[in-house]
Amino acid sequence: MAEPEHGARQETGVLEAEEQSREGLDNERIQAILDAVEAGDAPAVIAELEPLHAADIADFIEQISSQQRRAFLALSADQLDGDVLSELEEGVREEVIEALPREALAEAVRELDTDDVVDILEDLEDIDQAYILETMESDDRAAVESSLAWPEHSAGRLMQSETVAVPQDWTVGAAIDFMRTEDWLPDQFYHVILVDERHRPSGYVTLGRLLSARRAMALSELVEESFLSVEATEEEEEVAHLFNKYHLISMPVVDQSGRLVGVITIDDAMAVLDDEHEEDMLRMAGVNEESSLSDRIIDTAKGRFLWLFINLITAIFASLVIAQFEDEISALVALAVLMPIVASMGGNAGTQSMTVAVRALATRELTGQNTRRVIWRELAVGMINGSAFGLIMAVVAGFWFGLPMLAVVIALSMFATLASAALSGIVLPVMLDKMKVDPALASGPFVTTVTDVVGFFAFLGLASVMLL
Amino acid sequence: MAEPEHGARQETGVLEAEEQSREGLDNERIQAILDAVEAGDAPAVIAELEPLHAADIADFIEQISSQQRRAFLALSADQLDGDVLSELEEGVREEVIEALPREALAEAVRELDTDDVVDILEDLEDIDQAYILETMESDDRAAVESSLAWPEHSAGRLMQSETVAVPQDWTVGAAIDFMRTEDWLPDQFYHVILVDERHRPSGYVTLGRLLSARRAMALSELVEESFLSVEATEEEEEVAHLFNKYHLISMPVVDQSGRLVGVITIDDAMAVLDDEHEEDMLRMAGVNEESSLSDRIIDTAKGRFLWLFINLITAIFASLVIAQFEDEISALVALAVLMPIVASMGGNAGTQSMTVAVRALATRELTGQNTRRVIWRELAVGMINGSAFGLIMAVVAGFWFGLPMLAVVIALSMFATLASAALSGIVLPVMLDKMKVDPALASGPFVTTVTDVVGFFAFLGLASVMLL
Repeated sequence: MAEPEHGARQETGVLEAEEQSREGLDNERIQAILDAVEAGDAPAVIAELEPLHAADIADFIEQISSQQRRAFLALSADQLDGDVLSELEEGVREEVIEALPREALAEAVRELDTDDVVDILEDLEDIDQAYILETMESDDRAAVESSLAWPEHSAGRLMQSETVAVPQDWTVGAAIDFMRTEDWLPDQFYHVILVDERHRPSGYVTLGRLLSARRAMALSELVEESFLSVEATEEEEEVAHLFNKYHLISMPVVDQSGRLVGVITIDDAMAVLDDEHEEDMLRMAGVNEESSLSDRIIDTAKGRFLWLFINLITAIFASLVIAQFEDEISALVALAVLMPIVASMGGNAGTQSMTVAVRALATRELTGQNTRRVIWRELAVGMINGSAFGLIMAVVAGFWFGLPMLAVVIALSMFATLASAALSGIVLPVMLDKMKVDPALASGPFVTTVTDVVGFFAFLGLASVMLL
Repeated sequence: MAEPEHGARQETGVLEAEEQSREGLDNERIQAILDAVEAGDAPAVIAELEPLHAADIADFIEQISSQQRRAFLALSADQLDGDVLSELEEGVREEVIEALPREALAEAVRELDTDDVVDILEDLEDIDQAYILETMESDDRAAVESSLAWPEHSAGRLMQSETVAVPQDWTVGAAIDFMRTEDWLPDQFYHVILVDERHRPSGYVTLGRLLSARRAMALSELVEESFLSVEATEEEEEVAHLFNKYHLISMPVVDQSGRLVGVITIDDAMAVLDDEHEEDMLRMAGVNEESSLSDRIIDTAKGRFLWLFINLITAIFASLVIAQFEDEISALVALAVLMPIVASMGGNAGTQSMTVAVRALATRELTGQNTRRVIWRELAVGMINGSAFGLIMAVVAGFWFGLPMLAVVIALSMFATLASAALSGIVLPVMLDKMKVDPALASGPFVTTVTDVVGFFAFLGLASVMLL
């Protein structure tokens, strides 16, 4: 758009000041707050927090040690507002909420949109939940309660109940007048939702179009071409996927009968997408999905123990394979030297395929349509790299140990291992996904078992047949 | 908001029809298109595509085989509009663009917002770029060219040049009138940006607030509390992080002198966030970041070869450690049976720490403030699980081989391996990040080398000293 003409110029010092007053969280600031906390100087703590965004205050609270956190909360807990609570990660938020007097908590929650209230209440004990609900205004309480009635991780939990909806046969002028007279509108809204006489959404108009259209224009002529709504029971992960795929900014949520019950905005969808990514990445590495840097050490250790234990079982399983070939190893120790190479290459090739598969399943790029082709593709890739590394290792082992047949054995077993690693890396996640098991969580141990067992068995078995 | 009163009710069949006409991409639809392609029936293909969203058409093109794609493009390439092009992933997009007559390409590009045009032009050969630029209107061309002048992956490339900006001393009424008279506004905008007399942004007002305020109200009284702008040279990854952290919907982009040059909207930031996640996840698994399910097999194999080759080097390095203990292994083959367990557990524990570290670095949760504490934390977790699995394996090995000293050896080496795995899993990514090397890409091989070498050396070395 062309640069607008500048009218009468008045320096608005307020704006500049406001812009500059929003400061970031640097180490200097953190130190200043910690110093004030140590001095027990509550007003100084509050003054240091004043120019920070709620997200930065939350970051501060998460990054300090739990001892510092207790001292900080003792001084300032009742001054934290609701936005800071909604920015905090779960574990830390619980700590903060425990430190808050109930009245302060209720006060903090009251300012929030219903979706943020729901997010906070979800994790509270029933008794605290009930207390906070009681202190809310009846409209808001009803909205929060009905949101909490939807299943966890559903669109119903993610939505805010505050919607801006008008009859679909209204004009631009009527909609604008309606908004002007309403004394209360949500903090964030980007569309006016059109509803039919049964309050079912039938389209939406962006505020930008509304603003640039003539007053007499029918809203129905301005609706966006791509309009989607979801049922409140839909999973939030699916909702986030739809936002990302169709570049949505907000999406109406309906109940079973198709009536509008709320709206989800893209910032919430973005947060869900981010969480899902984190979950997938950590799960694939065998880290408990709820773990965070601010958890207690013993909880973190416990969270990782289970995965390591599963890995131990598969490793012992692989060792049992090796144990079948003790005589061969005694006769030719070179086998013991080389066998970890085969297993390690298999493990890595399997992880490559598996990661591609898990990611493609998460983004819906791997569908019924292309599964067979993708499996064949991965197998082909595994066979190509299996041949390449078979050759390389044949040369290495040949020179190292001077045994031509050992070179042949390692070449063949490398091929078999990399091919089966690639195959299991794609097939197992697909199968788990079909069985409604999260492939990010469960694929790793299976793939590792396959690659280790195949690797050791192929190498030692071939050696036993061809070498000794 | 309360349910609005419904005025005169008129059934608007148009809306319902439009809503229903937007259909998803299911297997049936895919088959129908493919059948039409096989029959060489271009009008039928176009008719099948008609009700689909551009994102779904792009999905279809990505999911079919390259042979089917060629046949499809031969029939329909000139009918694809710009939106479909911008939805396609890079590799496939190149194929489609090659199949497009230049005029059709220029036509398709003309409808797009400048940020999408930039996204497409970035990947084209200079000669095609020049051709398309020539066919654009001079305003748009200037905007696209100035955007392309910013570095790759910068805010300047991500932004759209179309902004809605008004002088900061205007009133609500003036802003609304201005928008009414402008005959052209961007497809998507959510804020009116306030600028000073030098066109530097000083705040923004959401359209929702603008609509609900009185006409005489000064815009400066309605500005959002949290206002951020970025320089055009800022990295897009950082921009995406800011959107996610501060729940922004749009963000003005400025040049070195602080003048407004464009705006980035959250949907683009969400796409960047998604790409960054994908990159991190794939890089950690040693998959070439640009790889996709629709790449050619040989390219995929090449992309993965490098990582496997690096892994081979580290695996050979670990084997050299084993080779130092050939005599010990000959004397006691149980060592060869048990040693992969130690290395495997170390590798997994290292991956756990490393994934947590890479993720925390990406989300800026790991900062100068808490690095030391987090390192200590990981080490403690490694020592706790090292003790636990040391005990478990002592029992297992004791029963299996009946050698008490072997049990002691595996317990001690398990402890040493898991502790050093946890430590290197956190320290190496942090160091790489400090050295400005992407920790997601480079941590894996280092951590694996450490855990393998420490694992084999601790186990075989201790065995050599204590057992034989």
